[in-house]
Amino acid sequence: MKYYLMAPGPSTIPERVLLEMAKPIIHHRTQRFEAVLGKVRAQLKQIFQTQSDVLLFSSVGSGAMEASITNFFSPGDQVIAVVSGKFGERWADQAVVFGLDVVRYEIEWGKAVDLNRLRELLEKHPSAKAVLCQACETSTGVSHPIKEMGQLIKSRSNTLFMVDAITAMGIYDIKTDEWGLDVVISGSQKAFMLPPGLSMMSVSQKAWEFNKVSKLPKFYFNAKEEAKAQSKNTTHFTPAISIIQGLSISLDMMLEEGLPRLFKRHARLAKATRESVKEMGLELWAALPSDSITAVKTPSGIDGEKIVSHMAQKYNVTIIGGQDQLKGKIFRLGHMGYTGEFDVLAMIGATEMTLKDLGHNLTLGKGVARALQVLHQELKS
Amino acid sequence: MKYYLMAPGPSTIPERVLLEMAKPIIHHRTQRFEAVLGKVRAQLKQIFQTQSDVLLFSSVGSGAMEASITNFFSPGDQVIAVVSGKFGERWADQAVVFGLDVVRYEIEWGKAVDLNRLRELLEKHPSAKAVLCQACETSTGVSHPIKEMGQLIKSRSNTLFMVDAITAMGIYDIKTDEWGLDVVISGSQKAFMLPPGLSMMSVSQKAWEFNKVSKLPKFYFNAKEEAKAQSKNTTHFTPAISIIQGLSISLDMMLEEGLPRLFKRHARLAKATRESVKEMGLELWAALPSDSITAVKTPSGIDGEKIVSHMAQKYNVTIIGGQDQLKGKIFRLGHMGYTGEFDVLAMIGATEMTLKDLGHNLTLGKGVARALQVLHQELKS
Repeated sequence: MKYYLMAPGPSTIPERVLLEMAKPIIHHRTQRFEAVLGKVRAQLKQIFQTQSDVLLFSSVGSGAMEASITNFFSPGDQVIAVVSGKFGERWADQAVVFGLDVVRYEIEWGKAVDLNRLRELLEKHPSAKAVLCQACETSTGVSHPIKEMGQLIKSRSNTLFMVDAITAMGIYDIKTDEWGLDVVISGSQKAFMLPPGLSMMSVSQKAWEFNKVSKLPKFYFNAKEEAKAQSKNTTHFTPAISIIQGLSISLDMMLEEGLPRLFKRHARLAKATRESVKEMGLELWAALPSDSITAVKTPSGIDGEKIVSHMAQKYNVTIIGGQDQLKGKIFRLGHMGYTGEFDVLAMIGATEMTLKDLGHNLTLGKGVARALQVLHQELKS
Repeated sequence: MKYYLMAPGPSTIPERVLLEMAKPIIHHRTQRFEAVLGKVRAQLKQIFQTQSDVLLFSSVGSGAMEASITNFFSPGDQVIAVVSGKFGERWADQAVVFGLDVVRYEIEWGKAVDLNRLRELLEKHPSAKAVLCQACETSTGVSHPIKEMGQLIKSRSNTLFMVDAITAMGIYDIKTDEWGLDVVISGSQKAFMLPPGLSMMSVSQKAWEFNKVSKLPKFYFNAKEEAKAQSKNTTHFTPAISIIQGLSISLDMMLEEGLPRLFKRHARLAKATRESVKEMGLELWAALPSDSITAVKTPSGIDGEKIVSHMAQKYNVTIIGGQDQLKGKIFRLGHMGYTGEFDVLAMIGATEMTLKDLGHNLTLGKGVARALQVLHQELKS
């Protein structure tokens, strides 16, 4: 059967991008590459909605997460880390490894940040130098209220707001400058429709001030050195050339669609997915579901891992299950990047067939019918 | 004109590899990807000539250089770093950033390690926990006597030998286990004929003992966590999926050729390049030239940077000039990876034409004729 990738990332890579990356590789110390880098730098600012530089690192997203810690802090600095899933946990653990004093704002996996609780934490920890939070916590599908969090944080001159937007940037509206987001990171394999191996980090003027006094050791992920090099359209080390060339095409595609339509499409795909899932008698896992991925509670009596493996083996559709404490309890559907309206039908159709095969009581076709109705309605408006 | 990439890396990517990477991306948490990773792990051991694991990181080579420091040492540890060019300098600087006590063995750029001098340094610094050296210093084209250095170091139970083989592994003979090389790093964009973005690091049993007591912070480049994950054919973080899929093909190509023939081909291409360069009345820069790249002294009266730019603009051949203190003084020809005998003719031919255009006194054709003679002779034996 034809292969469909409907995972929380990597997402499907468009043919235009695959073909661009399949061209003979060019050398990075050439005007030809510098022109590409200059172009993507300008385009990334548009996607990130920022006047600041968006730096590139040759790493997956976790590398940019590391850069956000080592470039702005010194050992012993206190930060408040929102821990609402696997990626929040990773960022907090990473901060601990580098000697930060981490105040964990623990949230049940599947729930979102409570603004009152965050306000309390900020009052209780006046010396906290940053708040770290996922825009979308990929492990639970939750979208945190980043705009409102920014309003609480931006008046504090000694506190940075750092946002992991790996599964959010280019999918739904993240206004970096307007919302006061000081450090925003992302990665290549989600909305940017590329292979994993390139990460991005925007740095506000306020964050650069923190960089000046930061004492943590940094070399591979040295933001200042990269900013210096990248402002001249080159990189400090050999860059991930082919992914950057692919990025040039995927950014064209994103900007040709335009941010309003890009966000609206993702909202439409997400809404159709959520509505069909409910139509099948299933429950959404996330209290505040993101428009990038949909986490679904496994119906009782069925092993969530079995849903994933059956769908892969029988229908050649890749979705992904839960991680760590959510293993078996949820499955996650990805509908970001190079995903069209009718791909949602494929994803929902395969989910229906799989659940039916595994003994779940449902009337085949109700899910796809609901998806079609929602999509049709949304396409009108 | 047709494009030829004859640089010290990235090197040309074979069509088979480009096409493999242009296939729809697969998810990394699948049996299909695990099978690929298991295969390349076994093949990498053959190329590295080691029984130890060869770990993969989603970074360019400088990331693996960082891993070699943060995973085996604690602040204040003393290491001896061979500094014979830009990459030796980078490794030493990196060690300083992470708080190591770095004894720099400075060598004139273009000269090789002197074993007596190294012996003296080892005697003078009995507590040195490692010697860091490039197998090939890419900035000068020098090949250091790694085998002989290993003999001096391996009897010292408290000293690791760390080798940057980014521009050497898979090009000429590096016997990791037999020569007592404890940590050997490499990168994807040289002999492995891939885009930059994947690095490799082999770790000996002796080095793992150092890892146990290492106190430097590590997270993105955590060798122990990666070893744990990769032993199960998965990775700690999202891996550089498409490059690893390409690696599976390029390793097939390397092992189909076989190590003896692979090394012999590179030796042949290098010899032909060196002989033709001399035939043109030019001098080699490296005292002990490597078989991966050839650094050539710019003839007096000609700017080395002009040679590179003229060759690119007029003949669409990419070679690279000197870096830092060697800028303008040398130019570097790459002949590694997916390079055949007749590609040397293209490279030497373009060099001859360029030098002639820039006013160097030479009889056009003497270089390519000499290359042909050497290649013909070497192909007989």
